[in-house]
Amino acid sequence: MPIKAVIFDAYGTLFDVFSVGVLGEEIFPTKGTALAALWRDKQIEYTRLRTLSDQYRDFWNVTQDALEFACDSLGLPLTNTARDRLMQQYAQLTAFDENAAALTRLKDASLPLGILSNGTPDMLRSAVESAGLTRFFDHVLSIDPVRKFKTAPETYQLGPDAFGLPVSDILFVSSNCWDACGATWFGYQTLWLNRYAQPLERLGVTPNRIGSALTDVAVYVAEING
Amino acid sequence: MPIKAVIFDAYGTLFDVFSVGVLGEEIFPTKGTALAALWRDKQIEYTRLRTLSDQYRDFWNVTQDALEFACDSLGLPLTNTARDRLMQQYAQLTAFDENAAALTRLKDASLPLGILSNGTPDMLRSAVESAGLTRFFDHVLSIDPVRKFKTAPETYQLGPDAFGLPVSDILFVSSNCWDACGATWFGYQTLWLNRYAQPLERLGVTPNRIGSALTDVAVYVAEING
Repeated sequence: MPIKAVIFDAYGTLFDVFSVGVLGEEIFPTKGTALAALWRDKQIEYTRLRTLSDQYRDFWNVTQDALEFACDSLGLPLTNTARDRLMQQYAQLTAFDENAAALTRLKDASLPLGILSNGTPDMLRSAVESAGLTRFFDHVLSIDPVRKFKTAPETYQLGPDAFGLPVSDILFVSSNCWDACGATWFGYQTLWLNRYAQPLERLGVTPNRIGSALTDVAVYVAEING
Repeated sequence: MPIKAVIFDAYGTLFDVFSVGVLGEEIFPTKGTALAALWRDKQIEYTRLRTLSDQYRDFWNVTQDALEFACDSLGLPLTNTARDRLMQQYAQLTAFDENAAALTRLKDASLPLGILSNGTPDMLRSAVESAGLTRFFDHVLSIDPVRKFKTAPETYQLGPDAFGLPVSDILFVSSNCWDACGATWFGYQTLWLNRYAQPLERLGVTPNRIGSALTDVAVYVAEING
């Protein structure tokens, strides 16, 4: 099945969610890494709980809620100033170095590209612009209009709707294994960017390809499209 | 609002999910605690992902999937024998010492009692029987018939349906803060049994009471019912 478009997850896939650990370390010496990890875990947990219980609150607010819990849990006193600095850092996460080269190869192959993310439209705009990636994307899709987070089917449906393509014609790329699995369940072709050499989640579903860097996407597309 | 029935979560609330760490430690020296923690985290994560994506698989199988991931992630070689021993241990989790005394006080107050859990009917029967708690419960409710896990509203609806009471007449007790929050969203009166002195989850909702042991439930009921 030829690939006619490629959609990327944002957080973890194009933008390094653990890059906030550097500022975290500056504010809370020796605790930056633990803070970044727990912050991320709670952020994702809250998106799922709120979706399961139909209690949507946007990703910016959920991210701040998760930061507050993480600091409380680790015994780190979070001043308003520190909170605002950390949240601002989240709006301008470091992009992975490889992004521009990898995306250029896909654009050279005339593939329409998109982002599909839990982030709010504002967060995504800010992250894409500050990383200088705006020119690559035909669609930057936030789940915000459907008021559910991944892996709800309504979120993945935004991709085929925006591109006007059957879901099975679209390659979905995520560094979050659970996201790649959710997209596979939904019907996308999928590539899991296994950046940190993690084991496959035991969800009874396997992404079509497992890569380790964004540059693997163009290789996979060339292989499938011939 | 008087409390006319009390429903308990099972895993973590009546049964100690970390008690498997002892066997885990025997099988994988120095790694038992880490295994029990990751196993539990993944188990809960998989219930949520499968519910969000409408990919139900029962709790016994999800628990085994989570065990396999946890061992893989921690680099622990899981033989079939070790897997079966750990799973069997999960079917007979240690009950908290305080259970019988706390439940007796509630039965003495003529309150109908129940369990509402992600576990399969077989897992719950086995756990309740091996802990000698069968006589206390009027209803042992598994979410299995609705093929969704907590915190989906369909799961919490099983309580009012079984007891024939409005949800607001029922006290829901859980040691899992997210579960107490989900039940609060759904409309139960709630008591979060904060066994491990954790901070409150930042979900924009607060259980009606926060306790630290199961014996706090009867105290709360007496206070509300007068």
